Amino acid sequence: MPTYRLTLAYDGTDFAGWQAQAEGRGRTVQGTLEDALARLTGGERVAVAGAGRTDAGVHALGQVASFALGSAWNPADLMRAINAVLPEDVRALEASSCEEAFHARRSATSKLYRYTLDTGPVQLPTRRRFAGHVPWILDGEAVHAAAALFLGAHDFASLASAGGSVKTTVRTVTRSEMTRDEVTTGTWIYEVEASGFLRKMVRSMTGAIVEAGRGSWTVEALRKALEARDRREWPAPAAARGLTLVRVSYEQGPSGPTVRRE
Amino acid sequence: MPTYRLTLAYDGTDFAGWQAQAEGRGRTVQGTLEDALARLTGGERVAVAGAGRTDAGVHALGQVASFALGSAWNPADLMRAINAVLPEDVRALEASSCEEAFHARRSATSKLYRYTLDTGPVQLPTRRRFAGHVPWILDGEAVHAAAALFLGAHDFASLASAGGSVKTTVRTVTRSEMTRDEVTTGTWIYEVEASGFLRKMVRSMTGAIVEAGRGSWTVEALRKALEARDRREWPAPAAARGLTLVRVSYEQGPSGPTVRRE
Repeated sequence: MPTYRLTLAYDGTDFAGWQAQAEGRGRTVQGTLEDALARLTGGERVAVAGAGRTDAGVHALGQVASFALGSAWNPADLMRAINAVLPEDVRALEASSCEEAFHARRSATSKLYRYTLDTGPVQLPTRRRFAGHVPWILDGEAVHAAAALFLGAHDFASLASAGGSVKTTVRTVTRSEMTRDEVTTGTWIYEVEASGFLRKMVRSMTGAIVEAGRGSWTVEALRKALEARDRREWPAPAAARGLTLVRVSYEQGPSGPTVRRE
Repeated sequence: MPTYRLTLAYDGTDFAGWQAQAEGRGRTVQGTLEDALARLTGGERVAVAGAGRTDAGVHALGQVASFALGSAWNPADLMRAINAVLPEDVRALEASSCEEAFHARRSATSKLYRYTLDTGPVQLPTRRRFAGHVPWILDGEAVHAAAALFLGAHDFASLASAGGSVKTTVRTVTRSEMTRDEVTTGTWIYEVEASGFLRKMVRSMTGAIVEAGRGSWTVEALRKALEARDRREWPAPAAARGLTLVRVSYEQGPSGPTVRRE
């Protein structure tokens, strides 16, 4: 069957996450996209796969979805038609045909997430949907050292959310940097790229970096807690609203919009 | 009576503008602030003056409000107390005591507004509350020439919204620049500062600059329409959601947050 790949951006604020759920759990991005495809195809129930199962409140600039349709579409026409029926908090940014074997999640080689964190006494209301907020001043040296802890292959069991059913909690992190935002005073941007992530892993990383930055945890204590492989030992995760799935990479090339920031 | 000056930031999306209105017209920033002050003072009905009467959907980073209270407050305590009772889409960023004669609107010497405009085929959903959107590519030279038209003292009757009751439609514009955003590809930022503005004046300026940039109006045609002093001759105003009141200046100094962008 003709198979398609879409790059999606969404404001996750009003979604109960990516994954379609049992009835009554709220609207999801996957469900919204499947409903849009049903409208375009005159009722086909299309199963959509997503690269990252983003949680409620988490945003995307470069989520990737794959699905097969009963008939062939010109990808540019498909993208325009989908955008015409999607609600305004989800948009397709790119569309292409792909091999039937392509699967948005299983074919992915790496994902890049970004966490935006405002610091200081008062968060601007215009930023509250897209940035976490802590009222503390963070120490730059501690922040950088804590972010560097996650680089390389580690067993991230201490950061794994309960109830997961993954075979292994080992992941390889190829980038983990928290830097001061050049544009907005008091804002930090954490970017982390890995072969894959456990549930709430990025938010747990960010929460730990904040604890180091404010001086509540030493970097050495975080290192020991990571090695303990026990999630009860780990600081609380940062709020979902600061997190964005920026890019998913494949052997065929990465997703992602042409903008550097949202 | 002890008089106070607050700098306010708000996300205007869910407000029917600044100004308190007859019942049933929706929540307003002024009404929300007056309700918050009534809660703090045990029921005082405080009349709050705002520097700019922002329309529905228009945001602020540096709106200024002034009001008198029945008893004296430490300004830092007042700010914390107000932020504790305000809804999350309005925040006080600064508070100070001022002379009884100070009035947020009448004492203002100039205001700076910013319009954020996304261009290109698809607007990112994460930007839809805070940026207007047009699907066209704009010509830089035409955009700059159109923005420069407004510099200096002009009778802006062509840009005045109907139903106003102003004594004169002459205003003096000291800054009028539309530049490409350095951070986000395809985004333009229009900044305009003046002694005062007519209703919808900035959105009418932005709408006209867009028409010049896409080649629908020549800059010469805009100049003639400005000189005609007839609002039926002018292009439609840009959408409210792209507009932000950034800063209000006084002899005592400007308002405004320490960030350069929201």
